[in-house]
Amino acid sequence: MRTTTGWQATGSSELSAGLLERRELRPDDIAVRVDYCGLCHSDLQALRDHDGHSRLVPGHEFTGVVTEVGLEVAAFSVGDSVAVGNIVDSCGQCRMCRAGQENFCHEFPTLTYGGKDRVDGSTTLGGFSREYVVREDFAYRLPEGLDPAAAAPLMCAGITVWEPLRALDVGPGVRVAVVGLGGLGHLAVKLAVALGATATVISRSSDKADDAGRLGADGFIVSTDSAQMTAARESFDVVIDTVSAPHDIAPYLKLVGLDGTLSVLGYLGALTVEVADLLIGRKKLSSAGSGGRPSTAEMLQFCADSGVVPDVEVLPSSQVDTALERLAANDVRYRFVLDMSDLD
Amino acid sequence: MRTTTGWQATGSSELSAGLLERRELRPDDIAVRVDYCGLCHSDLQALRDHDGHSRLVPGHEFTGVVTEVGLEVAAFSVGDSVAVGNIVDSCGQCRMCRAGQENFCHEFPTLTYGGKDRVDGSTTLGGFSREYVVREDFAYRLPEGLDPAAAAPLMCAGITVWEPLRALDVGPGVRVAVVGLGGLGHLAVKLAVALGATATVISRSSDKADDAGRLGADGFIVSTDSAQMTAARESFDVVIDTVSAPHDIAPYLKLVGLDGTLSVLGYLGALTVEVADLLIGRKKLSSAGSGGRPSTAEMLQFCADSGVVPDVEVLPSSQVDTALERLAANDVRYRFVLDMSDLD
Repeated sequence: MRTTTGWQATGSSELSAGLLERRELRPDDIAVRVDYCGLCHSDLQALRDHDGHSRLVPGHEFTGVVTEVGLEVAAFSVGDSVAVGNIVDSCGQCRMCRAGQENFCHEFPTLTYGGKDRVDGSTTLGGFSREYVVREDFAYRLPEGLDPAAAAPLMCAGITVWEPLRALDVGPGVRVAVVGLGGLGHLAVKLAVALGATATVISRSSDKADDAGRLGADGFIVSTDSAQMTAARESFDVVIDTVSAPHDIAPYLKLVGLDGTLSVLGYLGALTVEVADLLIGRKKLSSAGSGGRPSTAEMLQFCADSGVVPDVEVLPSSQVDTALERLAANDVRYRFVLDMSDLD
Repeated sequence: MRTTTGWQATGSSELSAGLLERRELRPDDIAVRVDYCGLCHSDLQALRDHDGHSRLVPGHEFTGVVTEVGLEVAAFSVGDSVAVGNIVDSCGQCRMCRAGQENFCHEFPTLTYGGKDRVDGSTTLGGFSREYVVREDFAYRLPEGLDPAAAAPLMCAGITVWEPLRALDVGPGVRVAVVGLGGLGHLAVKLAVALGATATVISRSSDKADDAGRLGADGFIVSTDSAQMTAARESFDVVIDTVSAPHDIAPYLKLVGLDGTLSVLGYLGALTVEVADLLIGRKKLSSAGSGGRPSTAEMLQFCADSGVVPDVEVLPSSQVDTALERLAANDVRYRFVLDMSDLD
């Protein structure tokens, strides 16, 4: 086994730096020096859910440089800039994998942390560490022109909004609304606009109205203002709902126009929906999450070509606890990225 | 006022023949001699919900012949064969009306019975009668070649499945599944096949397997057979759910493939959906009901051109109570139609 250092929760949910092991490279593995790792809401959730009996190393959106390649690795060489997201393996055989949607693998994809390695059964440990070992198929070349720190969150937040935008044919002439302006939401705005659509931000208060305009939105609706919400009835082809807490989706369904779609990305539990709210206007309720290999590579290239990266606040990884606390308080515009070089 | 005869519930939910009034023709009205009227599940529901204080004449899918036209009627002449569905007016001004989706009118369309007339505020009385007076805009020319008795149910059951099939781009190469083989379901199978798609029927038992094949389906799945349901996982682009009772949609969502849609047409209450069941496969949940004027006319022409009509059992209107009882017991393949000529 190889060793590296990382931020890990053991007996408690607090993180401390310590040694951790990585597997020796298999023939199709690469070793990546992790330079930057984004902080996702699901990291917070994983720490809250942590039982204390096992070791947890969060982090599933990171960029870095290849430091070593397995004997049969063809796509990467030492020194290549790469990015890794929240999936590091899948069965490769099922209908979804064959369709390039490894995120929907029938055997469930292997998650970057807290997953079960498909070869040795070990629990995967995440990207809040200085090194990660991954199958080359689940690493992506970082296109030239993308800043490695800002690009890290593209690998979870970015792809999670990219797939539904693409699947829903967002492009010129399409009216997109984005509910909630956080890590997911601000990238949804930037990507929708870069794809040629118009974007409107829907937020609980007007605090982020200026930001919305700066991000490219040409509309802003305060969701608590019933007059504004009523005026916007049926005004959008696609509504992207990034609110992570349980909430009533009916007000957002009302904003969807004929044959349009409300895509719920932030909240993953059970929802109640009145069929009549779908019937009137033939509206659709959908969701999406993470992405397959082809669309992840496509998204990275699109971001490089169009200059889209998230707004990030980069902190030394030693400030991970501060970052987590501020993320829990939604005190970030719009994504924290940890600089892992202080782990050397 | 004009008078005609019809089947009406007054003090109770039982129907009895009696005189009823129709308005004198307004300039844009036509009078229709009702020859055939289909029986819809919503007629049963309306009778169950009937409060006994008002008069109820059910019936909202009928065909007949124009007997008189208003002064400004342009589209129809006396003697024309026409069809009328469950909507007889709408505001004509809102976004949905302007889009030709009068069924989604912001002021709610005027229903064929139990609706409120937009001019005089009276309660509309339905097609279980020998005459109906309707705005010409909400009557449709019955294309040549369509049997008037069999065509009647196209005006509710037919258009209700036609709109989602068209909105979901059902055509060659599209894999459609239809849950429930009743009035809606059997028309969904016929229309999907006529549109060039493949159709599979999903039913609680194998009783209707032969019928499904006769209707054009090339697949049949018994929904209570878990092996069959598992084998059909992600096999369909469009699943049309026509089950009218409250039920769990999760098993049917599992049948939907990548980016496919489950359209719930039969049940109109509140549904619970796990977002994860939509996320995995980027599936969509939708609904539809009734139809706008353009698509209703399109549907009738398509049925005439392709020879699609429902399987009907025609009874004299005097047997309406028998028909309602048998409909409540699902003892019909697949739609009752009342012959109104015995009301003369």
